[in-house]
Amino acid sequence: MMMIENILRVGREDPTKLIHALKVGMALTLASMLYLVGPLYSGIGENAVWGVITVVVVFEATVGATLSKGVNRLIGTLCAGSLAFLLICVVDKSGRTSSAIFIGIVVFLTGTAATYLRFIPHIKKTYDYSFVVFLITFNLLAASSFRTNHVIEVTLERICTVAIGCGICLVMTLVFPDWSGSEFHNSTASKLDFLAESIDACVNKYFEDSENIEESSDDVDHIQRVYESILDSKATDDTLALHASWEPMHSTYRYKYPWEEYVRLGSVLRQFGFTVVALHACLQSQDQTPRAFPDSLKDSSTRFVKEISGTLKELADSIRDKRLLAPTLVSGHHGALKDLDDAVKSQPQSLKISEAFMALLVGMAAKLDKV
Amino acid sequence: MMMIENILRVGREDPTKLIHALKVGMALTLASMLYLVGPLYSGIGENAVWGVITVVVVFEATVGATLSKGVNRLIGTLCAGSLAFLLICVVDKSGRTSSAIFIGIVVFLTGTAATYLRFIPHIKKTYDYSFVVFLITFNLLAASSFRTNHVIEVTLERICTVAIGCGICLVMTLVFPDWSGSEFHNSTASKLDFLAESIDACVNKYFEDSENIEESSDDVDHIQRVYESILDSKATDDTLALHASWEPMHSTYRYKYPWEEYVRLGSVLRQFGFTVVALHACLQSQDQTPRAFPDSLKDSSTRFVKEISGTLKELADSIRDKRLLAPTLVSGHHGALKDLDDAVKSQPQSLKISEAFMALLVGMAAKLDKV
Repeated sequence: MMMIENILRVGREDPTKLIHALKVGMALTLASMLYLVGPLYSGIGENAVWGVITVVVVFEATVGATLSKGVNRLIGTLCAGSLAFLLICVVDKSGRTSSAIFIGIVVFLTGTAATYLRFIPHIKKTYDYSFVVFLITFNLLAASSFRTNHVIEVTLERICTVAIGCGICLVMTLVFPDWSGSEFHNSTASKLDFLAESIDACVNKYFEDSENIEESSDDVDHIQRVYESILDSKATDDTLALHASWEPMHSTYRYKYPWEEYVRLGSVLRQFGFTVVALHACLQSQDQTPRAFPDSLKDSSTRFVKEISGTLKELADSIRDKRLLAPTLVSGHHGALKDLDDAVKSQPQSLKISEAFMALLVGMAAKLDKV
Repeated sequence: MMMIENILRVGREDPTKLIHALKVGMALTLASMLYLVGPLYSGIGENAVWGVITVVVVFEATVGATLSKGVNRLIGTLCAGSLAFLLICVVDKSGRTSSAIFIGIVVFLTGTAATYLRFIPHIKKTYDYSFVVFLITFNLLAASSFRTNHVIEVTLERICTVAIGCGICLVMTLVFPDWSGSEFHNSTASKLDFLAESIDACVNKYFEDSENIEESSDDVDHIQRVYESILDSKATDDTLALHASWEPMHSTYRYKYPWEEYVRLGSVLRQFGFTVVALHACLQSQDQTPRAFPDSLKDSSTRFVKEISGTLKELADSIRDKRLLAPTLVSGHHGALKDLDDAVKSQPQSLKISEAFMALLVGMAAKLDKV
């Protein structure tokens, strides 16, 4: 029962996943036609295998991811095909045993070289999959060149079927498309919202009277969200950005998502998140010590934080609506910052961490202007 | 030239990568023997393809990763084989066109179901690769069942070659083995060291006289390291833990790495890292305001931080030497903590964030006892 509940929840929370599953089923059926429809099969024969494999491996959840894998697959197959062609020219001229030894050595060398190159960070990031495909295809062609005489035809047919497989994926991914760019866009906007909420929650908690502590579970919830959605988001962000970089301008919006900006914004938000976590830790340790704040400090802190979270929410909305933010809105917090600064200076015993906060916020404000 | 420099650097920094590349080359050559050696080829035939593919795809840099992929590949192949067998029994009894339609529908349904199931978090984490292999193998068997009559033999041969491929990977990965557990172990120890260094650097900077600012680039370096090695380490840690969980007790050490503890320690260290980043932000904002600390506060803060970083370094060494840490060492900072606490209380204007720091440290001390 738990299992079924889990299974159903995935589709309920995000119907695009169900749509994606249906699209994959459809693409696989199309690829199987290479086998099932007589005229197609007689043209391609056993190489139809590669069409099916390509669809399974290349078809990813978003357009950008599919494109990037498809192009990698084509590059890998083409390189392997060319190199195998050269190898065959040499093997053709030598004897049986010597060519077996020669193939063995070449397989060893290319295998070592390609695996080593995959460790180079730049290649790993963008072309890793090309190398995997290259190794598979090259080894198969090299080894089978020893057993069959028509390797060149096989190579050409294989490139064709891989191209057909990629074509099927490309067409199917553009039916009800799911863009990495738009996923990145939405996640950036909701990160801003979470951040605003949790800053509010932290500071309100800090200044509130100690009698209403029953809210603390809600507070932990906010902090948890910050962790999950912001601090650990680097890997996800990088992947989304990489895939978004493959997506051309969207036809519906006539608009390319500024994913480079989102990456930069994401790292600023992570910095912001660190401060929230530190604030929260302050909060927990303060719980034991008696607190007494002058009203002036409390008021200016609260006003300052309201401005910050207001600006963040405003920014989230502006990202969602894809409009430019008016500079006046962004600079609203500068006045509040000055008030708080005065209050802090007039009163040494204070929420010292606000200074770190301010520094981050000023940095943030500079970023906002760029978006 | 830049390119060649880059290529050489990877091997110089980490010779295990070069060794891994040579191992892959060796494994591929062994797999190619299925083609090149006459008696082997006559037994297996065209299915030798799958041995080569398995080696390329399954052979990963560490033992745990290779084992996990190999087992996944076998599970996927076995499930696909069984299901294909059932399908063939049905198809055998129906006519030509109707069986083509039937295969098409089955391919669509399994493709959709398997893709949908891959989205479930638990399955995605552990069995994602099984599903990919299942889809490829099942579709190929189902589609080719329409064209050849000896699908059952093909299925059995395919399972055999996949098993041979996995066997080659397993043997080669155990030659000069590279354990995920030991990588996790080393990265945990060096994270502790980095953390200790950067805490030292931050606090020394905070209390030092403003004339020696030329050290700041070194400081930024420390903070940068904290970022790279600690804060963004969650994804890497999770992968290492997953792979380490596949590794049985090591024969050399008679010792299983306590990777669950490392995961927990990693998340505590990340919390610690947030505090360091917040401390650093404090530092930057403080640069503009005049500073005047009483010596008593400076001394006790410095002593406190020395104790903390000393404990962290001690812990790093104890992890490296695989020995238990004496509880007296860990509790050394409690005395210093009390001193600092007194100093802070007697002097309201203070490095307020230390409180967050203490809270984290006390939490940390609790964790240390478990390691």
